[in-house]
Amino acid sequence: MRIIQADDLDDVAIGAAVLGTGGGGDPYIGMLMAKQAIAKHGPVRLIDVDELADDALVVPAAMMGAPTVMVEKIPAGDELTGAFTQLEAYLGRRIDAVLCGEAGGMNSTTPFVVAAETGLPLVDGDGMGRAFPELQMVSFTMHGVRATPMVMADDKGNSVVLNTIDNRWTERLARAATIEMGGSALIAFYAMDGATAKRAVLRGTVSQALAIGRTLREAHEAKRDGVQAVVDHLGAFRLFSGKLVDVERRTVGGFARGEAVLEGIDGDVGRQCRVAFQNEFLVARTDDRVLATTPDLITILDADDGTPITTESLRYGFRVQVLGIPCDPQWRTPEGLALVGPAYFGYDIPFVPIEDRAQSPAARS
Amino acid sequence: MRIIQADDLDDVAIGAAVLGTGGGGDPYIGMLMAKQAIAKHGPVRLIDVDELADDALVVPAAMMGAPTVMVEKIPAGDELTGAFTQLEAYLGRRIDAVLCGEAGGMNSTTPFVVAAETGLPLVDGDGMGRAFPELQMVSFTMHGVRATPMVMADDKGNSVVLNTIDNRWTERLARAATIEMGGSALIAFYAMDGATAKRAVLRGTVSQALAIGRTLREAHEAKRDGVQAVVDHLGAFRLFSGKLVDVERRTVGGFARGEAVLEGIDGDVGRQCRVAFQNEFLVARTDDRVLATTPDLITILDADDGTPITTESLRYGFRVQVLGIPCDPQWRTPEGLALVGPAYFGYDIPFVPIEDRAQSPAARS
Repeated sequence: MRIIQADDLDDVAIGAAVLGTGGGGDPYIGMLMAKQAIAKHGPVRLIDVDELADDALVVPAAMMGAPTVMVEKIPAGDELTGAFTQLEAYLGRRIDAVLCGEAGGMNSTTPFVVAAETGLPLVDGDGMGRAFPELQMVSFTMHGVRATPMVMADDKGNSVVLNTIDNRWTERLARAATIEMGGSALIAFYAMDGATAKRAVLRGTVSQALAIGRTLREAHEAKRDGVQAVVDHLGAFRLFSGKLVDVERRTVGGFARGEAVLEGIDGDVGRQCRVAFQNEFLVARTDDRVLATTPDLITILDADDGTPITTESLRYGFRVQVLGIPCDPQWRTPEGLALVGPAYFGYDIPFVPIEDRAQSPAARS
Repeated sequence: MRIIQADDLDDVAIGAAVLGTGGGGDPYIGMLMAKQAIAKHGPVRLIDVDELADDALVVPAAMMGAPTVMVEKIPAGDELTGAFTQLEAYLGRRIDAVLCGEAGGMNSTTPFVVAAETGLPLVDGDGMGRAFPELQMVSFTMHGVRATPMVMADDKGNSVVLNTIDNRWTERLARAATIEMGGSALIAFYAMDGATAKRAVLRGTVSQALAIGRTLREAHEAKRDGVQAVVDHLGAFRLFSGKLVDVERRTVGGFARGEAVLEGIDGDVGRQCRVAFQNEFLVARTDDRVLATTPDLITILDADDGTPITTESLRYGFRVQVLGIPCDPQWRTPEGLALVGPAYFGYDIPFVPIEDRAQSPAARS
């Protein structure tokens, strides 16, 4: 068990945004909400999943919706906890611990709001080890955990309880409700017992985010290269150095979809890189080759200081570094690739691990 | 109290389709489902709302969705009762009686399925005295009854519980869920106690449907004019005699919207009538005048035998009679017109009672 203070949240938010691969919402908003909650209710206990009793009830809390909408709609803490406590009421029993659904700007810190307000511990882990755009895309699904009963709440006071036949249906109905709720909703879902959590949770994601954030902060303080610090810390692959020359962006079916176009700088002068996203960055490619694909992490950092850049904050002229980071091994299984591989998102590209792509003869020709 | 046998359901279905003003789904499908349920579980007790104890719990059961989709998707009885019993579980108490939400082809008979399967009585009344396209358009709303908690269930096993801040929000979220559920869903909503039901329910709608259906059937058996029998029975106004020459139809936002175009026959030769609908017929007009508007009932009957024609069964070449029938007086109040008047549906036409329109000097020039 480890105590997370308000001051730790800057590191968590920035580190999670690195893992968030462009998605998961604005890290600052979530961080501010979590800081406020800790200032009011006290620090949060971060526990290892093994500290849970087998019959404990653990529930992930998150925000659902397109990040481009989320940044316009700052949720109040009450709503976040509202979905969570409504699920508790629906289940008719106390929840024992909070969990992150994903690692991403906002969704790594919103569970701290719920943990602080309820006084419950937060489990150090999540269901993605990164961010993904759809709610069935979690390790929990691979371990047979049902997303439902799931509670959704909006900022007006409306709420929905879903019970579905599978997690794809949960995504479908929840996405439609999210759109009607104004583009984002607070959610509580994937209730599971401690024994299941020990199998299904991707471990250590929160402390990993904290460590990444600290690494970046210390690099800034020492005026060292932030990008290099992240590369070293995570064993990441440098995929492309470029300047943002175009961002095509549209909100479709409740998702922020689009593509960022980079013109090479430094060692990549004369080349172009396109990074496609659906809330999260999914595929990075140059004209002649694929640099990385989902489920490996594609992260875009500010070239100067290593600050992670979310899809909604992509702006013309930004000088960035595109990194590739190996995903959790579970995502590389056939079951994992069926949920989140390139084919699921409509790309006719085989999944090749980033470490193999980076070492192929065609690399960085 | 009155016992409704399977054989009575033909009359109920046809009579309700007359009141359904083109909406509420196919009367035959709902009738077949209700007959099956009664054959299996026994007849249904139809009670007056005054027979309810003040603290009894009464819940309307219905189908939601575009009729054009409903006719393709025949629901099984289980789903109908599933939404109802899930609401019972959610409320944590027994429901004492079933109610119709609207008078319409399918939604006047689906509550018989629930009543038969649960053994509960059916209250003789509804929330519209006709059919309307949106779920907040019920007398219950005018009496402060909340649509939520509302349960929705689809044919696959998915369900949703809604809790909203008002009934317009219920409509909005439920409509989105209905679309995702394939275009129609089974619903249980507007749970209310007996004391409230005595104020809020429009009384006698089921027995009125039964009487209209019997009137039409007896006219057929005696080879009398079915249209005239309905006109006489209801004090309806004959608005137009025509042949269907065009039906523009599209499913938009979960509704069947469109317009039927009639070329005059008999006394209306040389004139054209357009009847606009959103699930239900809303406005009937010729080139030079408005014949009738919502909330008064606009009903289209087969000119030969008086069979009511739903919006989804409108076909080129049909020879029809357009009738106007005065709505329940509650709909003519400012509160009623705000919910279901022409302006709500986007028509810049004042509401004028059908009996005044029919007697105006310009009538049937």
